[in-house]
Amino acid sequence: MSPKITTELLRQLRQVMKSPKYVQEPVQAYIVPSGDAHQSEYIAPCDCRRAFISGFDGSAGTAIVTEQHAAMWTDGRYFLQAAQQMDNNWTLMKMGLKDTPTQEDWLVSVLPEGSKVGVDPFIIPADQWKRMSKALRSAGHDLVPVKANLIDTIWTDCPQRPCKPLITLDLSYTGISWRDKIVALRSKMAERKVLWFVVTALDEVAWLFNLRGSDVEYNPVFFAYAVIGMNTIRLFIDGDRMMDPAVREHLQLDSTLEPEFKIQVMPYGSILSELQTIAAGLSPKEKVWLSDKASYALTEAIPKAYRYLTPYTPICIAKAVKNSSETEGMTRAHIKDAVALCELFNWLEKEVPKGTVTEIIAADKAEEFRSQQKDFVELSFATISSTGPNGAIIHYKPVPETNRTLSVNEIFLLDSGAQYKDGTTDVTRTMHFGMPSAYEKECFTYVLKGHIAVSAAIFPNGTKGHLLDSFARSALWDCGLDYLHGTGHGVGSFLNVHEGPCGISYKTFADEPLEAGMIVSDEPGYYEDGSFGIRIENVVLVIPAETKYNFKNRGSLTFEPLTLVPIQTKMIDVNLLTQKECDWVNNYHRKCREVVGAELERQGRHEALQWLIRETEPLVRAQ
Amino acid sequence: MSPKITTELLRQLRQVMKSPKYVQEPVQAYIVPSGDAHQSEYIAPCDCRRAFISGFDGSAGTAIVTEQHAAMWTDGRYFLQAAQQMDNNWTLMKMGLKDTPTQEDWLVSVLPEGSKVGVDPFIIPADQWKRMSKALRSAGHDLVPVKANLIDTIWTDCPQRPCKPLITLDLSYTGISWRDKIVALRSKMAERKVLWFVVTALDEVAWLFNLRGSDVEYNPVFFAYAVIGMNTIRLFIDGDRMMDPAVREHLQLDSTLEPEFKIQVMPYGSILSELQTIAAGLSPKEKVWLSDKASYALTEAIPKAYRYLTPYTPICIAKAVKNSSETEGMTRAHIKDAVALCELFNWLEKEVPKGTVTEIIAADKAEEFRSQQKDFVELSFATISSTGPNGAIIHYKPVPETNRTLSVNEIFLLDSGAQYKDGTTDVTRTMHFGMPSAYEKECFTYVLKGHIAVSAAIFPNGTKGHLLDSFARSALWDCGLDYLHGTGHGVGSFLNVHEGPCGISYKTFADEPLEAGMIVSDEPGYYEDGSFGIRIENVVLVIPAETKYNFKNRGSLTFEPLTLVPIQTKMIDVNLLTQKECDWVNNYHRKCREVVGAELERQGRHEALQWLIRETEPLVRAQ
Repeated sequence: MSPKITTELLRQLRQVMKSPKYVQEPVQAYIVPSGDAHQSEYIAPCDCRRAFISGFDGSAGTAIVTEQHAAMWTDGRYFLQAAQQMDNNWTLMKMGLKDTPTQEDWLVSVLPEGSKVGVDPFIIPADQWKRMSKALRSAGHDLVPVKANLIDTIWTDCPQRPCKPLITLDLSYTGISWRDKIVALRSKMAERKVLWFVVTALDEVAWLFNLRGSDVEYNPVFFAYAVIGMNTIRLFIDGDRMMDPAVREHLQLDSTLEPEFKIQVMPYGSILSELQTIAAGLSPKEKVWLSDKASYALTEAIPKAYRYLTPYTPICIAKAVKNSSETEGMTRAHIKDAVALCELFNWLEKEVPKGTVTEIIAADKAEEFRSQQKDFVELSFATISSTGPNGAIIHYKPVPETNRTLSVNEIFLLDSGAQYKDGTTDVTRTMHFGMPSAYEKECFTYVLKGHIAVSAAIFPNGTKGHLLDSFARSALWDCGLDYLHGTGHGVGSFLNVHEGPCGISYKTFADEPLEAGMIVSDEPGYYEDGSFGIRIENVVLVIPAETKYNFKNRGSLTFEPLTLVPIQTKMIDVNLLTQKECDWVNNYHRKCREVVGAELERQGRHEALQWLIRETEPLVRAQ
Repeated sequence: MSPKITTELLRQLRQVMKSPKYVQEPVQAYIVPSGDAHQSEYIAPCDCRRAFISGFDGSAGTAIVTEQHAAMWTDGRYFLQAAQQMDNNWTLMKMGLKDTPTQEDWLVSVLPEGSKVGVDPFIIPADQWKRMSKALRSAGHDLVPVKANLIDTIWTDCPQRPCKPLITLDLSYTGISWRDKIVALRSKMAERKVLWFVVTALDEVAWLFNLRGSDVEYNPVFFAYAVIGMNTIRLFIDGDRMMDPAVREHLQLDSTLEPEFKIQVMPYGSILSELQTIAAGLSPKEKVWLSDKASYALTEAIPKAYRYLTPYTPICIAKAVKNSSETEGMTRAHIKDAVALCELFNWLEKEVPKGTVTEIIAADKAEEFRSQQKDFVELSFATISSTGPNGAIIHYKPVPETNRTLSVNEIFLLDSGAQYKDGTTDVTRTMHFGMPSAYEKECFTYVLKGHIAVSAAIFPNGTKGHLLDSFARSALWDCGLDYLHGTGHGVGSFLNVHEGPCGISYKTFADEPLEAGMIVSDEPGYYEDGSFGIRIENVVLVIPAETKYNFKNRGSLTFEPLTLVPIQTKMIDVNLLTQKECDWVNNYHRKCREVVGAELERQGRHEALQWLIRETEPLVRAQ
């Protein structure tokens, strides 16, 4: 990987930072955040402005350019990658290390007195603006919104914003019509006494209208905003996508509808002026509900007294609790996904010993098998196909420069998933195609014990996921091992593979309590830098549990794995398992064999079926 | 317990809320927090304003009185007690339940437009003021400081503020001289570039100067503030306590000292004006360090630009990590405490069947045995001596109206502790003097499993205690049982029995990481309303652990019990224990027998020694 040469680009950027054509007053620093106007985790190529200016294209990072300096803040996952992708113009700021200054502190240390710091108000979330602005102001500087994105002004070959056709989802997939979702949303609005709700997150717009898109890779979303009033629905979306008869029919654009369900379609770019118009018409006590992570531009459009901000929107919370149509769809999607992985692992078992399978070939083969399944749409994230030392790079993605050949001497870690029209998958399996060492088996077994501890945990209704995180670590901790990531994230239903508001991580505290119907991942791991990585990940559904005393009728919850892919028994040191853990593995494998076996049979995939049967042989523990 | 009749008091309070004699403008609501001007948990009688106005005297609760309403917020420990102690004028707000409004939301829902909400600025912590003030302002109301405490104006027989003699502690107890503590504090101040540090918490003043007092029951503290500059030390304290030759000698008040260690003694009440004088003399960039829980009045005395606020002060953090003199003292104190409890339980075993022992008698007897031990000072909190249904009241304290007779048919729960000059104890044992039912044993055994899970937990250096909380619940959760309190709190060394900044609770997130030398309690429980309560509590010391892989040299930690009192084996259903848990109990009992046995022998307490030997017989698990 050679770094991007940015000398000329930085010169141009510094020029426009002073140009009256773009800025009212010169700005002495310009912030280039990672995100798009919707605070998406995955972004379209036209929004990869930070990667354009710096060369660093990891998923998290903030660039700040001043007249003298260019600095990049990113976290531990990306220290190596950022250092390789950026040239000497850039200083890497390693977040999480003790001596690394915050962006605010650094700015204060390098800026001349009374500086102006510019940022695109559409790209910076309101909560970040507030923190940054306060810190700068207290040091005598000013954070100022720069309306024209300065990167865009110098990005001559910037790709166009995608505007791909939409997919309509009928009730058999969604379980609830968009009309009923609007009704439920309005009732939440009435509860909180707000008159307007602004939908800014792309997956929330998609979920609300039962539409999907493909504007952003891996995430079936489309660029749009929506503003829901008590009697109006406005959808801000570009292109001729609204000319598609299926979409018109789905949204009933040409039907005679009660006025409160009539959707007004407006240009994507008109959201700000529409919000300003709404704001101008508000009477005292009339409130507008926004996520506190919405952009500064949209938040600022609503005067402070009229704003109602929450960390999680009612759509985010409703979307997290899957209804029976969605859980059935997710179940189907996971069975198909398991079929594809049985095919893949059977194929790898035969091919790896020949020394011809690279990480990229394995990833491509996984995609090929998945694409043979019904309702396959695309992958749900870039496949992490990693062998040996590459497995220890937690967010690794094979590229030609790093591509390693799988062998019978190294552990192979595959973290992959797909979007099917009926559901989203995300599964990690760690395999050895030769003879794992005792140490590798030991580590794998501790990770497995942690995986089981979460998956089999029983807990009272209303428990937050972060309280379960330590269960995943206990077996590792006992031996002095740990992993530096959270244990699980929410998973969308044919939507983003990472979604809020629930999860299982020691890092959060403000997650919403788990409830039946929520879907999260359970993915503890262990990483030995320079040697190997281990992770065992299932997607699991929160379900009611049967307990002897049922928490005084508060109700009991537990998890049911949706992922049904064998966990390689060759990697397990059975003597480290308790009888209960051993039973868990055997029951899990029995279910894989029954459910996925039947589907392999139905699809006539006999060789993969034989592989599945072999891989799901019960473990036997020495008494 | 009959409720306090508050109709007349509330009428008087509502009158002064409108009286120009006390308020600049009438206030429509008045907040009565729990604390004193030092945000103490335990308070002197003169500070029990919330109990005076409402009747509810639990340790946590906030009262708010409006023209129409009187409402009390308290947590799960006190739902029952508050309901019993308050009359119909009061509405109980059960914190932690989903439908309970926050104080802010409730105020907004009941107040007329543009209301003023009053509070004593010395009693409300600055962080609470900020949150409350912001919420009220955004709803069009105002939080206003009312200088005269309105409760004091109607509290005609309010007791005087105590002003008792001081105890000086020499190096054999404290391990570090007050001079060295000041040096260490100043070096922390220099690191953060602050010029002044304001000590507001009573236990921090006591710890810093190696002094103790008895102004507040159970907590060996005295009313004082301190302001530490880089070259000055000011101690704000009343009475003739500074005339005591021992204190003068200890603080070297009459010696020729380097000026930076010369203590200036000032009146307790002059702290605010002194701070204002200091503030007036500050140059730009000169900062004053305060806890963000310091009172609004003191915080406000320092202009915002000069304030440096942190959730935990450097004294709080230094105090939490006990040095070897302190851990040796704590160990000695716990052995003496165990001797007293062996005597007590041996006595109870003989006396309870006679039907003559009440909860109060048992508590008094515990105090009597403790007071026979060397260096005993007082109890460390009000003894919770509770039998049968009273055991389910988590913070129960027997009073004549509720006093129950111990019997061979009910579970007895004793949560008690003492202040010795060498350490502070806090221990809970749950006993049955007859035949416990299978269900009682089952519940007890789950609680024990949780206790062991925390006590034997191994975790990486730097882990926050709240991440261990779920370990204590796992066995209970598996059967659908839980308890509504945290699992542990920090414990002072001859200081407050509850102290920050560490603990083991699902409720906190901002606790400081555990490190070797910290001392916390481990006290899971189970409570069956109307029937019984179970809790098993040891005080445990954080110590380095030996692990196979030692977290890549990050270091491993675990706990060592300081409490050495037998856990009643009669209450244990051995078949519910794993072999590891059974071994833990047997090892623990072996240590109790050896260490406490030797001390009982030394003190010639032969009958209690026999009892100890009987109670520490090893458990045997059916294979």
